[in-house]
Amino acid sequence: MKIGLDIMGGDYAPKATVLGAIAAHQNLSKDQHLVLFGDKDQITPILEAQNFNPDFFEYVQTSEVIGMGEHPTKAIVQKANSSISVGFQQLKEGKIDSFASAGNTGAMLVGAMFSVKAIEGVLRPAISTVIPKEKGGFGLLVDAGANADCKPEHLVQFAIMGSLYAKHIYQIEQPKVGLMNLGEEEEKGNMLTQATYPLLKTNNSINFAGNIEGRDLFNAKADIIVCDGFTGNVVLKLAESFYVLTLKKGFKDDFFDRFNYEQYGGSPILGVNAPVIIGHGISSPEAIKNMILLSKDMVETQIIEKFKTAFNS
Amino acid sequence: MKIGLDIMGGDYAPKATVLGAIAAHQNLSKDQHLVLFGDKDQITPILEAQNFNPDFFEYVQTSEVIGMGEHPTKAIVQKANSSISVGFQQLKEGKIDSFASAGNTGAMLVGAMFSVKAIEGVLRPAISTVIPKEKGGFGLLVDAGANADCKPEHLVQFAIMGSLYAKHIYQIEQPKVGLMNLGEEEEKGNMLTQATYPLLKTNNSINFAGNIEGRDLFNAKADIIVCDGFTGNVVLKLAESFYVLTLKKGFKDDFFDRFNYEQYGGSPILGVNAPVIIGHGISSPEAIKNMILLSKDMVETQIIEKFKTAFNS
Repeated sequence: MKIGLDIMGGDYAPKATVLGAIAAHQNLSKDQHLVLFGDKDQITPILEAQNFNPDFFEYVQTSEVIGMGEHPTKAIVQKANSSISVGFQQLKEGKIDSFASAGNTGAMLVGAMFSVKAIEGVLRPAISTVIPKEKGGFGLLVDAGANADCKPEHLVQFAIMGSLYAKHIYQIEQPKVGLMNLGEEEEKGNMLTQATYPLLKTNNSINFAGNIEGRDLFNAKADIIVCDGFTGNVVLKLAESFYVLTLKKGFKDDFFDRFNYEQYGGSPILGVNAPVIIGHGISSPEAIKNMILLSKDMVETQIIEKFKTAFNS
Repeated sequence: MKIGLDIMGGDYAPKATVLGAIAAHQNLSKDQHLVLFGDKDQITPILEAQNFNPDFFEYVQTSEVIGMGEHPTKAIVQKANSSISVGFQQLKEGKIDSFASAGNTGAMLVGAMFSVKAIEGVLRPAISTVIPKEKGGFGLLVDAGANADCKPEHLVQFAIMGSLYAKHIYQIEQPKVGLMNLGEEEEKGNMLTQATYPLLKTNNSINFAGNIEGRDLFNAKADIIVCDGFTGNVVLKLAESFYVLTLKKGFKDDFFDRFNYEQYGGSPILGVNAPVIIGHGISSPEAIKNMILLSKDMVETQIIEKFKTAFNS
């Protein structure tokens, strides 16, 4: 297994990414190799400072970096020798089995769509994000921002992909799917959720729990929270801001601690032909380590094959 | 001035509503009269228990109550002698100057639209809700749930109404309008926000501050947070759930204290031809008192006339 990691992506790259790779190495078996994409001249001194044997990693030298503020499509096209572009090229060619980066989210999305492409039958790949639950465990929010405008059939696919992902990656059996809405009752909603409800209700491949509301994000009503990417993005950023507030205020609590993105290893793009994970821009070494281990889990569980079977059967 | 109050609406009615009316009475001048809509047989014993002179209030006897779970349109039509239906009838006839209830939100919306109706030129009346700001003060979220599906021109009107309301009711000069979106940059968004941005940017009657994100809800970037009612409803309920969590966890803090809905007196429907306020279902006497005082402010400031001028000039 070859796990690709963009060393140049993230606010604290390359130091945080290299330290994360070192931390992850101890958790990988001998046949699980880390392939680092980036400028080796910047990587080497960090490894030396840690007395880390550089032979434990493989390296793909890249000369360009896509910045956080760059236009995704332009950057992917114009910076063909960037760590993200080269990473996706190797993922497409099968030289690596997964690719992860804490860099430009849009470039990761565009790169995935241009290189490995959407799984046949998947209309819109989506970003999945972990939401901690008040009574323990967590749920998955799909879509967290890849698709600003959605149709009902997209939301149904998000529900299917989220359910498969929760089952195989997190061993949640028959995960409950909730449709984010403005009321609990079946007839409530905007045009999108009103049209989506009956499709989810009659879909046998998911365990539909009905509508949920903003106040249900952290309770046990749903394991998979399905919504369009606009709503998901607003919800996610609002929830994060609350966590930041509790930190500022010095509130210590088990539940709020579980908002810490570091432990979840980033957000996978569900529905493309390879495991692709987008890390938080502020990723620490711990976050990078967990992003690598999540990559490994996605390869090991053959989650992409599960998706393919679901959408091509 | 005659301030109408539904005594039968809310989870703790009629006790909480009558106690709220008693508390408000001390803050009203001699020419500001409270008109209570409800069953006087239920009101009288509460007044007696408080040794409150019943002559301080006016009463309109009603025999029916619209429950919290009832279908709004059906209930308004079928329960013509309910406190909400009779209240709106008197508001339409000019017998009262404002009407407020902590009862069925949908029935309040439908009642307002059927009786006093939308102001000429207002495409979609909207619900406005107070959002506390981290550094003090608060902002207004428009629309908080009246319109699940919106067009760009609706959002522009929400911005105009929110700005006028913030200026005249809360003395916020040139309130900053933020468009809730999934990114800060002008070109970001779903179809709705992408089409709305240029309309807000070129509208001279508002002070447009650009896009804001979920994480900006509590900061100072915007005084008026404009969004469709679906997004607003999800955001509001999520924010409330966080407040409830901090209460559960026993976190005491000035900022979180200001999430307490009680102090804001409910959510006005902006854009109908009379002051109409919807209270929180769980309204306490304190919340009812503040809803009455907000009603008074809306009448005193002639906010409805400001709206009419804005949309008919």
